[in-house]
Amino acid sequence: MSPKPVLDSPWVIHALQQPTSWAWVEQALAHLDLILLDHSQCERKAAGVALNLIFRYPSSTQLVRQLTAIAREELDHFEQVNQWLERRGIPLASLSPSPYGAKLKAQIRRYEPDRLLDSLLVAALIEARSHERLGLLATHCPDPELAEFYQGLMTSEARHYGVYWVLADTYFEREVVSQRLAELAAIESQLLSTLYPEPRIHS
Amino acid sequence: MSPKPVLDSPWVIHALQQPTSWAWVEQALAHLDLILLDHSQCERKAAGVALNLIFRYPSSTQLVRQLTAIAREELDHFEQVNQWLERRGIPLASLSPSPYGAKLKAQIRRYEPDRLLDSLLVAALIEARSHERLGLLATHCPDPELAEFYQGLMTSEARHYGVYWVLADTYFEREVVSQRLAELAAIESQLLSTLYPEPRIHS
Repeated sequence: MSPKPVLDSPWVIHALQQPTSWAWVEQALAHLDLILLDHSQCERKAAGVALNLIFRYPSSTQLVRQLTAIAREELDHFEQVNQWLERRGIPLASLSPSPYGAKLKAQIRRYEPDRLLDSLLVAALIEARSHERLGLLATHCPDPELAEFYQGLMTSEARHYGVYWVLADTYFEREVVSQRLAELAAIESQLLSTLYPEPRIHS
Repeated sequence: MSPKPVLDSPWVIHALQQPTSWAWVEQALAHLDLILLDHSQCERKAAGVALNLIFRYPSSTQLVRQLTAIAREELDHFEQVNQWLERRGIPLASLSPSPYGAKLKAQIRRYEPDRLLDSLLVAALIEARSHERLGLLATHCPDPELAEFYQGLMTSEARHYGVYWVLADTYFEREVVSQRLAELAAIESQLLSTLYPEPRIHS
């Protein structure tokens, strides 16, 4: 497959500092079953992230309301991805994750209010990247039904990015949010600059 | 309020060894706002329990499928209870829990496969007790709209009890399940035999 320009992809949310490389698209398309299995884990983890934040900030009304809706939607997607796995005869299984999630999580500062800000922005960046990558799968996946499925999910990821950003903007000064988002986004892009050898949504 | 017989309540799931005392009903009706706030926490925790089991047993297809549905439903109920809180002008807040949940959780054995069996049965018993208590609130709550709300939720709790029981029965021998359920149910009833002084769903 020849290299294609993905730099001008319309799905790159402004916050992301570097677009996904074509090498990732090739790796993903060559291992769609593994990507689906990892995708299932990603949706499960995304529901867990939203629910953990609800547990940690139970009195923050806006956060609780918005993240309850996100958690429900992630579980809905988890179910849908699992139906795809079943349809393709792929048994549920645990995959070792790429280092991306753990390394981003390690950027979350330990003390409040920094911890809340960083948690929201790390979640926002993961949603933004997922949006971009599901968009690439929607365009390049050779199975039209699966491509359509990715197309449907990618719009949710973009919305989730927006929700996390708006929550950060609700609880913090805009300038503080923008500066920290830029710092974390630089790290996020750096983490993906070398392709992880195992095919993953965030390899 | 005079003592009333609750022993013959139609909502006592067979697994529960002792029905709820009338003292709990009086305590709950005298503090409906606190009960609603605690109920919100219970729904959030119930979603967390289901999601944690999905994380712990990601390859168990039946468990993942059934508990994804339960987690979504618990989040739906969490949202509904929070709407009731908003309607009554009660801000979201964290309440110290009664010892019930932690003491039941302490009964879960540490090593597999006992850990899975006990986790499913403890969850089943909590759902059974919630079903019984929401049924009592549905009957005795003086606000007809709130009573109707409890009536709607209690049927879900009974269904959830059934799902946890069926999962236990899927992964373990029926006799092993029945014996352990009886042991845990005895402890569960014992934990509620003295009314906790703070009004809670499981006081």
